[in-house]
Amino acid sequence: MQVRLDTYDNRWFNPGNPVKRILWYYTNAIFFHSYLFPISGIKVALLKLFGAKVGKGVVIKPNVNIKYPWFLSIGDYTWMGEKVWIDNLCEVRIGSHCCLSQESYLLTGNHNYKKSTFDLITQSIILEDGVWIGAKAVVAPGVVCHQNALLTVCSVASQSLDANSIYSGNPAVKIRERIIKS
Amino acid sequence: MQVRLDTYDNRWFNPGNPVKRILWYYTNAIFFHSYLFPISGIKVALLKLFGAKVGKGVVIKPNVNIKYPWFLSIGDYTWMGEKVWIDNLCEVRIGSHCCLSQESYLLTGNHNYKKSTFDLITQSIILEDGVWIGAKAVVAPGVVCHQNALLTVCSVASQSLDANSIYSGNPAVKIRERIIKS
Amino acid sequence: MQVRLDTYDNRWFNPGNPVKRILWYYTNAIFFHSYLFPISGIKVALLKLFGAKVGKGVVIKPNVNIKYPWFLSIGDYTWMGEKVWIDNLCEVRIGSHCCLSQESYLLTGNHNYKKSTFDLITQSIILEDGVWIGAKAVVAPGVVCHQNALLTVCSVASQSLDANSIYSGNPAVKIRERIIKS
Repeated sequence: MQVRLDTYDNRWFNPGNPVKRILWYYTNAIFFHSYLFPISGIKVALLKLFGAKVGKGVVIKPNVNIKYPWFLSIGDYTWMGEKVWIDNLCEVRIGSHCCLSQESYLLTGNHNYKKSTFDLITQSIILEDGVWIGAKAVVAPGVVCHQNALLTVCSVASQSLDANSIYSGNPAVKIRERIIKS
Repeated sequence: MQVRLDTYDNRWFNPGNPVKRILWYYTNAIFFHSYLFPISGIKVALLKLFGAKVGKGVVIKPNVNIKYPWFLSIGDYTWMGEKVWIDNLCEVRIGSHCCLSQESYLLTGNHNYKKSTFDLITQSIILEDGVWIGAKAVVAPGVVCHQNALLTVCSVASQSLDANSIYSGNPAVKIRERIIKS
Repeated sequence: MQVRLDTYDNRWFNPGNPVKRILWYYTNAIFFHSYLFPISGIKVALLKLFGAKVGKGVVIKPNVNIKYPWFLSIGDYTWMGEKVWIDNLCEVRIGSHCCLSQESYLLTGNHNYKKSTFDLITQSIILEDGVWIGAKAVVAPGVVCHQNALLTVCSVASQSLDANSIYSGNPAVKIRERIIKS
């Protein structure tokens, strides 16, 4: 069999009202994925307006890219660095005191590469409290990063990460415990 | 010997009429590498106007970056995801039913690092029908991805990929067969 | 202990006059991190105006992102490719005849992941003469790339690189000598 992208059919996938999606598309382009608004406040307000749950003290740096805010929840005192990309075709739940460093990427979409119809597959991502996703690191669909897990710079989490553990590499493997002191 | 970039000389490299190149530079910036035009139609028409061969049913998402469309050919029903970068200093030939996922990168330029003159080297890339290049994956100069080859998320293809095979890692190695069913 | 980003305190970190930083923020967005100015000359002049030391014959391609030019020095005939990101919270010193290829990234910031206060740590980066940082390669905080070192495409230098040596992988390891002929 061959791949036949002309037979791809994602009509079952309805990520939200089309008008809302278009409004968000340009809101994201103007306010988030740009340098115009370096301050977090207006961006947090816009995220909430479009249905995201956002806690207090959240910091959102410039050039962030968010797919669908109505599938996003963020706890308190969490940071999103420059060029972070939340590519959430479905739910992404980020806890409190998380750091998503520069250009880190949360990926929720996949395709069934065993089917000629290349069916869309979406899987949620969960970051529990205290997680640090390093600069340019990538979290794959379906991954849960348990409390205080740390994914180092440029690493790729294709499996869930244990709590209080440091992962590194592509694919990321556990390299040691993370012990936090005051 | 030392590297001497002041002795670099690429006058032999003539990738096209300078006026055409400047026009494309700004066309790419405004219509492709931006959020202004989420719809594919106008972008396909512009690619053809600048000399690309583009089949039917091609999808081009926002923020795509294409170096020289006159060195580009794309078959039918092929997709280019958000932030795909076709850095084609020379020919890039993409087949039908290919998927280039978000931020995947096709690199055709290299330098002779053994020469103090750091000579430019360009090598074509070919993606045969049904190839899937995963999100943030990279294809190096000279690589041929044979039919239905799959390069996983964040992997780097420095060698050609066999047909119906899945490659992963940096550098990418074959991890298993790709068997496609209807 | 838990991570407590509400207790993060970087008041000791003063990377420059706030007015200068805001002016640079928008200068970077308009002139550097954009497609508006493909020519290097005006960008070199702006870098110098904001305190960078820049030699002769330096080439700066479009979409480059520089954090603080007053912490940057560049020798003669050095190139910065498209989408290069100099994320210099502290000093970055780049020699002469260096090539920073497309989307390569110099990272100077880190956090103390063992402290609930997640303290900021900054470490300088030095690239000596003749260094080549490949496309999409990453140099971590504190790394020194000695003369003519070469970091291949998509590789991650987490340790300093020996002179006249080629490094590859994530993390990068030495794969062979670099011998340069005329």
